[in-house]
Amino acid sequence: MTISQLLNDYKSGTTTPREVMAQIRALIAEHAENPIFIHALSEAETEPYLERLERVSPGSLPLYGVPFAIKDNIDLAGVPTTAACPAYRYVPEASAFVVERLIEAGAIPVGKANLDQFATGLVGTRSPYGACRNSIDPSYISGGSSSGSAVSVALEMAAFSLGTDTAGSGRVPAAFNNLVGVKPSKGVLSTSGVVPACRSLDCVSIFALNTDDAQAVFDVACAFDAADPYSRKMPETAGAVEKTMRFAVPLPSQLKFFGDSEAEALFSAAAARFESMGYTAIETDFSPMLDAANLLYSGPWVAERYIAAKQIMDEQPEEVLEVTRSIIEQGREKSAVDYFAAEYRLKEYKRQSELVLEGMDFALTPTTGTIYTIEAVNADPVQLNTNLGYYTNFMNLLDFSAYAVPAGFRSNGLPFGVTLFGDAFEDRRLMEIGKAYVEVSRG
Amino acid sequence: MTISQLLNDYKSGTTTPREVMAQIRALIAEHAENPIFIHALSEAETEPYLERLERVSPGSLPLYGVPFAIKDNIDLAGVPTTAACPAYRYVPEASAFVVERLIEAGAIPVGKANLDQFATGLVGTRSPYGACRNSIDPSYISGGSSSGSAVSVALEMAAFSLGTDTAGSGRVPAAFNNLVGVKPSKGVLSTSGVVPACRSLDCVSIFALNTDDAQAVFDVACAFDAADPYSRKMPETAGAVEKTMRFAVPLPSQLKFFGDSEAEALFSAAAARFESMGYTAIETDFSPMLDAANLLYSGPWVAERYIAAKQIMDEQPEEVLEVTRSIIEQGREKSAVDYFAAEYRLKEYKRQSELVLEGMDFALTPTTGTIYTIEAVNADPVQLNTNLGYYTNFMNLLDFSAYAVPAGFRSNGLPFGVTLFGDAFEDRRLMEIGKAYVEVSRG
Repeated sequence: MTISQLLNDYKSGTTTPREVMAQIRALIAEHAENPIFIHALSEAETEPYLERLERVSPGSLPLYGVPFAIKDNIDLAGVPTTAACPAYRYVPEASAFVVERLIEAGAIPVGKANLDQFATGLVGTRSPYGACRNSIDPSYISGGSSSGSAVSVALEMAAFSLGTDTAGSGRVPAAFNNLVGVKPSKGVLSTSGVVPACRSLDCVSIFALNTDDAQAVFDVACAFDAADPYSRKMPETAGAVEKTMRFAVPLPSQLKFFGDSEAEALFSAAAARFESMGYTAIETDFSPMLDAANLLYSGPWVAERYIAAKQIMDEQPEEVLEVTRSIIEQGREKSAVDYFAAEYRLKEYKRQSELVLEGMDFALTPTTGTIYTIEAVNADPVQLNTNLGYYTNFMNLLDFSAYAVPAGFRSNGLPFGVTLFGDAFEDRRLMEIGKAYVEVSRG
Repeated sequence: MTISQLLNDYKSGTTTPREVMAQIRALIAEHAENPIFIHALSEAETEPYLERLERVSPGSLPLYGVPFAIKDNIDLAGVPTTAACPAYRYVPEASAFVVERLIEAGAIPVGKANLDQFATGLVGTRSPYGACRNSIDPSYISGGSSSGSAVSVALEMAAFSLGTDTAGSGRVPAAFNNLVGVKPSKGVLSTSGVVPACRSLDCVSIFALNTDDAQAVFDVACAFDAADPYSRKMPETAGAVEKTMRFAVPLPSQLKFFGDSEAEALFSAAAARFESMGYTAIETDFSPMLDAANLLYSGPWVAERYIAAKQIMDEQPEEVLEVTRSIIEQGREKSAVDYFAAEYRLKEYKRQSELVLEGMDFALTPTTGTIYTIEAVNADPVQLNTNLGYYTNFMNLLDFSAYAVPAGFRSNGLPFGVTLFGDAFEDRRLMEIGKAYVEVSRG
């Protein structure tokens, strides 16, 4: 269910948004055992969107009749937002800025997707609504925190979806479900109407089945929002994609696959594929990035998670999952001195990362080193979650844009993914490179 | 003693750097009752600089033989740095990045200038070396924290000087001593080798007798420093100075002169002078800036002052002046939650300030609303200091560039000043506008 296919089918009259939405409701019902949605829209709730579209022609809107899922920490007018914490539930009057833009462009919301509670986690198991299962092998984790957003697209319940990405939540589930995941530059997609995780770092992210769809959605969603003080204008000028480019890969000693030798081979193959495109891999010391990654949960930014969940944490702490609570409550204890000490270190890491990446056109890492079963994560929920953030946690702290793309399959059928990253506002260039890579991968 | 005059005199052979430095040492001795310098360089300490210059021709270096004073929180190799706290004293092996650049360009250090201890204050009285006296009326304050830096230039013991400016320390003393004061965009003058006040906000600043000198020094000092993680590259492109421009002035209700009606009249006259140049004053709601100003000392940034002085504050608190200690120790108590709550507010103020200043070419305020006697400040050291920061405290928090220029005299002979400010990296444009204004003022 790609966007271009849907639009063609609508234009040719092969199908209608009404038919597509009915099929999706049936598909969601078939997968009821997998808690993908916290709230799937009913026929009645879908009706106003359909009626509006039925008054205009399929060619008049860029996302006419395109179904999309919304992570349940992003507001959809009239439907509850929970952030996967039932006690936190509220019903917003207005949709989030980005949701509103997509609906204006013709997209139809399918439902509010499950997530790791308060977007705190990379596993997809930390939800009172149940652990979201991997779209390919249900014994495996979906990845998180944007678990339902990714799985709904992978299972074609939506053509694309919105997630959020503070520490990797928009990339890890993309890798685990064979999707592309856009982790935009901070601020280029508004976070108005989004429940904060770490407000100074949060990004709205996009999951799609292919690179064209991701670009089409990004083009609609990306707009300056004066009401969001963290919104930033995307500069007009973007770097060009050259025929020969240099890309940074971590030193061999810095690559971690946690015993997953197939992932290791898939990463080598992905790097080799970029080299086959005429690009040159440069082994680069990723210490500044890896050191910055360690700051995200050990540092003062957990105070932002506490601010976001303060009322529940103070008044109904029992309503917060134990693992989530244990992370968030650390935010209470940090001092402003801790904050600035960490900011100074982060500034050093940023400068060092600029120096090591000087002359590189982009950088390439695994999206995650490995994948785990739900059972394994339940047995060791903190350490395995930490392992999954090894390549992702530094991205927003260091103000990079990132693009997660599929990179083959393990012998058990589970997908592997790589992430391209670059400076802030390089989003469109990364998407172009990612597209070229995916086309080469297809052969 | 302007730079162009000095360079002309050296080229024509009318005088030599050796003669000028001897005259300056005599002048400093004459003013020994005013604690302008914490350490004035001896003849022996000056000798290496002179010998180096005597090997090159006067025309070969842009600041050949130009004497300059250095605030004593900025390192000069081989001479103690104290930050006006004797117990903090250390002797740096290397000069600060900016000092090094100026010396390379031919400038000669005169001495390390007095300051409000740890650059915490806008008065110039908070120093164990004594209250630095105003250059025009010694019963009045010099302004601070860069007190000695300003007074030494005003009394022609130096052709220019370096200060620092976190909350107004590079602007207030300029206004009080009839100088121009450059408060550069954060990061365009390196802070390597500078004792931090609030490291995330600190700027090195420049005092000069006139706008040409300020620009000449800025051009030498401004350079990216990879070793300073807060250093930022000055973009190549600068906004043009147009014949007709719009400038923002605060609403009449937001102008505070603390009973100083002559200052009020001088500000009106300054605005009228800009209008006489073809510019249009636009009364603008300065609430976002004034609200941001309140965050500087009430907010978490005092934690940075604590970090900077931590060892002394923890081990020898009696070595810190009581008023300074009472401010710095508040930094211990702030939490990371306080920090982020303030960052969120500051981001809102920044956005609001962008909105109110949209379409403006620059903004104009008094540099301070009034000036005080040393006696008055001693009687009420905190409130009067706060009054002096009313127009200055927001500048670095909101990432503005600023330029303080003279704007006439009160009937008692004390000078008044105004500050032009604009977006980050507008430094050179503000200096051009300031220059045009000063030329018009001269008639």
